Amino acid sequence: MTTPVRRELTIDGGRLDQRIAALAEVGSIDGGGVCRLALSPEDKAGRDLVVGWMRELGLAVSVDRIGNVVGVRPGRRDGPPVMTGSHIDTVRTGGRYDGNLGVLAGVEVIETLNTAGIETEHPLAVAFFTNEEGARFAPDMMGSLVYVGGMGVDEALGVVGIDGRSVGDCLAEIGYAGEAGCGAPAVKAFVELHVEQGPVLEAEGVVIGAVEGVQGISWTEYTIGGVSNHAGTTPMRMRTDAGYAAAAIACEARRIATEFGGDQVATVGAITLKPNLVNVIANHALLTVDVRNTDEATLQAAEKRMADFVAALVRDEGVTITSRTLARFEPVAFDPDLVDKVEAIAWAQGHSVRRLPSGAGHDAQMLARVCPTAMIFVPSVGGISHNVREYTSPEHLQAGTNVLLHVMLDLAG
Amino acid sequence: MTTPVRRELTIDGGRLDQRIAALAEVGSIDGGGVCRLALSPEDKAGRDLVVGWMRELGLAVSVDRIGNVVGVRPGRRDGPPVMTGSHIDTVRTGGRYDGNLGVLAGVEVIETLNTAGIETEHPLAVAFFTNEEGARFAPDMMGSLVYVGGMGVDEALGVVGIDGRSVGDCLAEIGYAGEAGCGAPAVKAFVELHVEQGPVLEAEGVVIGAVEGVQGISWTEYTIGGVSNHAGTTPMRMRTDAGYAAAAIACEARRIATEFGGDQVATVGAITLKPNLVNVIANHALLTVDVRNTDEATLQAAEKRMADFVAALVRDEGVTITSRTLARFEPVAFDPDLVDKVEAIAWAQGHSVRRLPSGAGHDAQMLARVCPTAMIFVPSVGGISHNVREYTSPEHLQAGTNVLLHVMLDLAG
Repeated sequence: MTTPVRRELTIDGGRLDQRIAALAEVGSIDGGGVCRLALSPEDKAGRDLVVGWMRELGLAVSVDRIGNVVGVRPGRRDGPPVMTGSHIDTVRTGGRYDGNLGVLAGVEVIETLNTAGIETEHPLAVAFFTNEEGARFAPDMMGSLVYVGGMGVDEALGVVGIDGRSVGDCLAEIGYAGEAGCGAPAVKAFVELHVEQGPVLEAEGVVIGAVEGVQGISWTEYTIGGVSNHAGTTPMRMRTDAGYAAAAIACEARRIATEFGGDQVATVGAITLKPNLVNVIANHALLTVDVRNTDEATLQAAEKRMADFVAALVRDEGVTITSRTLARFEPVAFDPDLVDKVEAIAWAQGHSVRRLPSGAGHDAQMLARVCPTAMIFVPSVGGISHNVREYTSPEHLQAGTNVLLHVMLDLAG
Repeated sequence: MTTPVRRELTIDGGRLDQRIAALAEVGSIDGGGVCRLALSPEDKAGRDLVVGWMRELGLAVSVDRIGNVVGVRPGRRDGPPVMTGSHIDTVRTGGRYDGNLGVLAGVEVIETLNTAGIETEHPLAVAFFTNEEGARFAPDMMGSLVYVGGMGVDEALGVVGIDGRSVGDCLAEIGYAGEAGCGAPAVKAFVELHVEQGPVLEAEGVVIGAVEGVQGISWTEYTIGGVSNHAGTTPMRMRTDAGYAAAAIACEARRIATEFGGDQVATVGAITLKPNLVNVIANHALLTVDVRNTDEATLQAAEKRMADFVAALVRDEGVTITSRTLARFEPVAFDPDLVDKVEAIAWAQGHSVRRLPSGAGHDAQMLARVCPTAMIFVPSVGGISHNVREYTSPEHLQAGTNVLLHVMLDLAG
């Protein structure tokens, strides 16, 4: 697939680390983390820094109407580039790797090729997409969603954030309301390097994750109505206990995950009872159920089973239960050939590899709608992310970027 | 047991209702309820009103050092009186029947006997005990506890309430720091009329409850430590989920109650998770378990089973769980002969009767330590209590007071 010469080519890990550290200075917060909310002054400063690096490396930088930035390195012939990239916005108490790694690894790949004087058949591109985190504006992955035509650009520009300001106004204010049409250039293939944000690679001592796809997500909020009564004087047979119903749903969620097995996960992260007193049966409960699977049919089976359970609970306990879908995304399967390629190149470089799904959303899942797409994961220490303690070792950053380099070279010819 | 003449004797339901309404004016709140916290100015005004009625009826009123008030009607001979009574303090948003009924029914019994010119062999007494509710000062049932020697009077006087003031200071301020020794007079027998505060009598269409005892209470607070992680990226096998552990304990509490059956009740009324977010595994949970049974051995068996379950959860889920006993009272069994008497007299008066335990605490459970004791329950509409909507129909108030009258006559000879 690749020539011997190219196989020996490696990126400069120290240079990559320096860029990660420099970008992390922009919006830095205590503990080594970063607060660079989408389209904030900090985001502008971060964008300016990365665009500067892109231009220094000779990339042709364009900014589209939703503020996505694409830097293109010409190939021997014209046509759609092989693209990498991610995002540089963060959550309010974010780490320095989430998103940033994927963008700066792309910059490092370009610099490595420039230094080695290597020209590719197809163009290469490095992109960063607007508002991936969704911490200021909903939905998350907005820029990549608009890029692939999943959301109209005018609709996106009109979205008002948590601080009452619109995407369009904020883009104009920071100077990133570009003129390029969204979705340009077309993309030949997309590969995103990202920290895992989960514990699997570290726990298994594996260096490279070949990401097969992104889990589908089903978030449901249940509002349960019961009858408040005295915990001592009300016999069990006469209870309508919203607190018990909430607990029963949480236990059923765990049973579903355990019995379905595989990549099935289910989480009840939030339960609120009223009046929330030791000796009063709860008359109100609010809880959320987060169910995810890489397979849409299995995800639907999990949803069906929970709906049946809730219906039985209404019948048996006498509670009222209303449900509201907070989020629902189908699973995304990445391109099998491209996943194979990531795995093969990682093995060829001497790394341990494991296929796994992504439990979190990524820009790559949007790009997967329009071109062959895959992702490369590197280990997150403790599985920690969206936290100032997010950390991936320099060795693993370097390993992931070298896999990215050779996957891109292979795709670009 | 009783002479034909006496059996036809009935109380004056209208007069009872008037006294209940008059006392409910003192500290009245919106919705027909009452706020008369122990030793507050409203409590003083309520006490003055009841003491006035006692004196009008010729009772010899004494106030002991903890503020318990006892009005005695002489018998043909001296000796310990047959006592009835309850409390007139309320919770912050209380009803007009809880406690008050038992005191005013006693006053009504006395007036009925006075009017009919009936003298008893043994003296009769009507008492109201200080701070039954515990809404301002802990513990609840303080006055009756001190009366029977379960707590030292000086210790009780030193208790500081939720507003930073001591029982002793407040008693002096309202003029109810009496001089009588606590526990005087000794009591021949004690019978307390009370609203059920539960739904059983109403649901079964029964008018009189012959209370066999008071459930033992076991309150435990569990603090659970887990590990916060991403709900999408953390496989089920790698979770340490404090939220699931809390839900599992709540479901086990329900299973214990269902499997033990009988009078066993178990309630998880309070669950608090942190960070309480839809997509984050909880790293902290606080929950309470309220377990009650009329049988101490069964209550201990329930506690043992929960402790075993918690230990298994620590082992299997990896969470840390610490427990704290918030309250623990052994069950109280009332005097079997006196319970029989309540039941027999209620039947003789043509009422439907049912034996049942009390799920709530009452002064009678303290008196049971020193003399034969029983309670009479009348239905609470909807089982509602500690609420301005607390209600018992005039017919049921009258029925209960007539049972009380004849039980006291029977005991006093």
